[in-house]
Amino acid sequence: MSFGTEQQPGICTQPEALTRDFVFNHSMLRVKDPALALDFYSRVLGLRLLRKLDFPELRFSLYFLAQALLAEDAPAEAGARTAWTFAQRGVLELTHNWGSETQAGFSYHNGNTQPQGFGHICFSVPDLDAAVAWFDRQQVPFVKRPEQGKMKDVAFIQDPDGYWIEIVEPARLTRLGQQ
Amino acid sequence: MSFGTEQQPGICTQPEALTRDFVFNHSMLRVKDPALALDFYSRVLGLRLLRKLDFPELRFSLYFLAQALLAEDAPAEAGARTAWTFAQRGVLELTHNWGSETQAGFSYHNGNTQPQGFGHICFSVPDLDAAVAWFDRQQVPFVKRPEQGKMKDVAFIQDPDGYWIEIVEPARLTRLGQQ
Repeated sequence: MSFGTEQQPGICTQPEALTRDFVFNHSMLRVKDPALALDFYSRVLGLRLLRKLDFPELRFSLYFLAQALLAEDAPAEAGARTAWTFAQRGVLELTHNWGSETQAGFSYHNGNTQPQGFGHICFSVPDLDAAVAWFDRQQVPFVKRPEQGKMKDVAFIQDPDGYWIEIVEPARLTRLGQQ
Repeated sequence: MSFGTEQQPGICTQPEALTRDFVFNHSMLRVKDPALALDFYSRVLGLRLLRKLDFPELRFSLYFLAQALLAEDAPAEAGARTAWTFAQRGVLELTHNWGSETQAGFSYHNGNTQPQGFGHICFSVPDLDAAVAWFDRQQVPFVKRPEQGKMKDVAFIQDPDGYWIEIVEPARLTRLGQQ
C-alpha cells in the first residue's frame, strides 16, 4: 500500500505532469509590529531573514524568513536572492502594513476564535523537552504544554501577534492518530 | 553584505545553537469538505497525501500533503511515515472537523476580510503562463490574474474553501520590491 496515493475521496492518483514541479513556497501572516515579530522568529525559533521587500506606494513591507540551514545557501545578489527565496519550500512571509505598530488596541485575528479558518504553523524540533525549557527561559506563552490535553507530546506556543505555533518532536509522534 | 543577517530592528544575528535544527514543518487550514479540498490540492496543485490521521474521540481528521518530489521519499510503515512527515519542510495540513461538509451555509474565514490575520499560502511554478492556462482549464477562480493590479506577474487563486493561494514564477520576480 502506498500512502502517497491513498484512496481518499477526492485524491487524484494520476496528477498532470505540469503540476509536478509546483512548490509550496510560503505561508503569509500579517504582523502588527515587525520588530517584535522578527525578534521572536529569529531569536526564539532560529529563522533567518532571506529577503525584505518594501512597497512604499502601497505602504507595506514583506519579510521572508527560513531556517538557518536553508538560508545559508541563498545567493547574495538582490534579484537572484528574491528569485531563490520564491523557489524554496518552508518559507514564512510576514506582512507589515505600515503604521499598525503604533495603533493602540490594534491586533490581528489568529484564526482560532470565531470566525475560524487558518489554525497554526508548526515547527518540529530535535528535542521537545529542550525546546520547552528554551521557550520557558524566553518567557514564551504556551497555549498548551506537551503534557496537557488529549494530544500528548504536542505543544502550542504563541507568537507576539497571538498566532499559534505547534511544537513537536517527530520521533515522539509515531503513534499519533492510532489511539 | 549578508541578507541573512540584515540589520532589521528585532533581527537576532547570533541565534542560539539549540534553534539551528528547528524546522518550519507545516501550515494548517481548516476545510469544510475534505473530498473537495483533497481533489483541489492533489489534482490542481499536484500535492500528494503523506498521511491521514483520525481522531474519532475528538471527531476530526488531519490530512498532511506535500509535493510529489518530496512525497516519493516517504517511508511506507505508518509510524515511521508519521515521524518523517513531521520532519519535512513545506507540508500543508488540512483539518476536517467531522460533519462540517453537510452543514448548509457553513464556511471558514479566509483571513482577508475582517477580522484579518493569516493572508495566503503561495506556490511557485516553473512557468506562470502555463500554470494560469492550467487553472483556467480547471475552472479555478482567480482573485487576481498576473496582469491585474500593481503587482505584475503575481496571481492569486482560491481553493474550495476560499483561501487565497499566491502563484508566482520565481524568475519573473527579480525586480519585485525594487520599483
